[in-house]
Amino acid sequence: MNEEKGACKRFRLDLAYDGRGYDGWQSQAGGNTIQDILLESLQSICTRIKTVQGSGRTDAGVCAEAQVAHFDVPGDWRMTAVEWQKALNAKLPPQIRIFACREMPADFHSRFSATGKCYRYSIDTSPVLHPLRHGLAWHRAGLSDVGRLRRAAALFEGEHDFRSFSANRKDGKDETRDTVRTIERASVEEASSGRLEIVFEGNGFLYKMVRFLVGSCVYHAKGKLTQEEIVAFLEGKTPTVKAPYCAPPDGLTLVAVRYPVEFEGK
Amino acid sequence: MNEEKGACKRFRLDLAYDGRGYDGWQSQAGGNTIQDILLESLQSICTRIKTVQGSGRTDAGVCAEAQVAHFDVPGDWRMTAVEWQKALNAKLPPQIRIFACREMPADFHSRFSATGKCYRYSIDTSPVLHPLRHGLAWHRAGLSDVGRLRRAAALFEGEHDFRSFSANRKDGKDETRDTVRTIERASVEEASSGRLEIVFEGNGFLYKMVRFLVGSCVYHAKGKLTQEEIVAFLEGKTPTVKAPYCAPPDGLTLVAVRYPVEFEGK
Repeated sequence: MNEEKGACKRFRLDLAYDGRGYDGWQSQAGGNTIQDILLESLQSICTRIKTVQGSGRTDAGVCAEAQVAHFDVPGDWRMTAVEWQKALNAKLPPQIRIFACREMPADFHSRFSATGKCYRYSIDTSPVLHPLRHGLAWHRAGLSDVGRLRRAAALFEGEHDFRSFSANRKDGKDETRDTVRTIERASVEEASSGRLEIVFEGNGFLYKMVRFLVGSCVYHAKGKLTQEEIVAFLEGKTPTVKAPYCAPPDGLTLVAVRYPVEFEGK
Repeated sequence: MNEEKGACKRFRLDLAYDGRGYDGWQSQAGGNTIQDILLESLQSICTRIKTVQGSGRTDAGVCAEAQVAHFDVPGDWRMTAVEWQKALNAKLPPQIRIFACREMPADFHSRFSATGKCYRYSIDTSPVLHPLRHGLAWHRAGLSDVGRLRRAAALFEGEHDFRSFSANRKDGKDETRDTVRTIERASVEEASSGRLEIVFEGNGFLYKMVRFLVGSCVYHAKGKLTQEEIVAFLEGKTPTVKAPYCAPPDGLTLVAVRYPVEFEGK
């Protein structure tokens, strides 16, 4: 905003989206991204809104059950949080829904205030993928060794340098970045018959990291990657070699963004 | 088929589809129907296939978990049922999937052999419809009187003339048709929070009948239609007046087609 800081109101949005038809969160040429469509809806209501900021990017095709974003509105613009929620849901396509909107203190920032995230990755092991699961699960017919998936996932728990488990960003800022993250929970559950869910909860995730972790778990389950090799990647002993497999975006969903308690109270 | 009957092999298909992007089952100009796309895939494999017949129509936007269809193949065409399933799934879009294919006796007919069907209708009562439920549920925020829904649904059980609970077909054959059907089960369950499922199982359903039944249940739950009025419609006391509400196709799924036991054995 160009306005003075004191003159603005900051709103937090909790939103869900079906990412299958979109080019991801992050604004880009072409405009078929969640951020672009959300900003367009905001600006169609108040042209003085300059930007909407998300907690982080999600890739093309990735869904969100609880992405968090924020935007600033001039102080003289008299719409309540509830009115913003209704107005946005009326403007947005049904594939993007605002589940909550509330006014926040000026020091809340959807990205910089976030202390952690939770992702779920779905793998469908049925012989034929149900039409309604298309784009919502990685179809790996017959994959069944939950024990091996679980043992591989457990290796990622704790604080590690996940450099080997991420893709290079196109902006070339990879060399200097901090690639140490902590994963508090890595669980593998059979949600229903033929449906495996891998959940990662941590203080932050590098670009495409969850997909590299899932790919590595599946590679281990199929006997193509040993636990020792995964540990070697984690210890940076083979720092220039990327983990061999990046799972497709289909099964990935952002399920929660975590904030300090002062930003969670309603 | 133009071939002699003895020269043909008949195959049964059990298929599921996400109907949201299609103009229903029944072939029509434009070709964006399940039947058209299925026939196109069949003919791309064997040009001598003339038609594929379904157990019945589903409307535009309606999904199926277990539609049944059959097609005939010249006797000299050497593909097994399993090969047909694989070949079709390779040709079809992922929104249409063949779950089973098997060779059937010549007297099996997907439509005329069927002895009953089961439909599920989903109603979502959450304040905001989840993006992944768009087109898969009728969004009725706040609708909560399961008891009233259940009492209305129960009125439909048994043998009735459902003339008042169906739409006229465009072919003008309505006046002479038999409109008596038996509903063996009409249940209303809260599948999960905010998610109601109405299931109808019966020996047959008229055009748009399930949607008229659901609309009537919802009208009753909202106090806009009394039980006595529903009974009057059922008893044909107001035969020229249609039940007032037809629910949208969004929540409707064909979940089973029933056949005599000799056609179900594998």
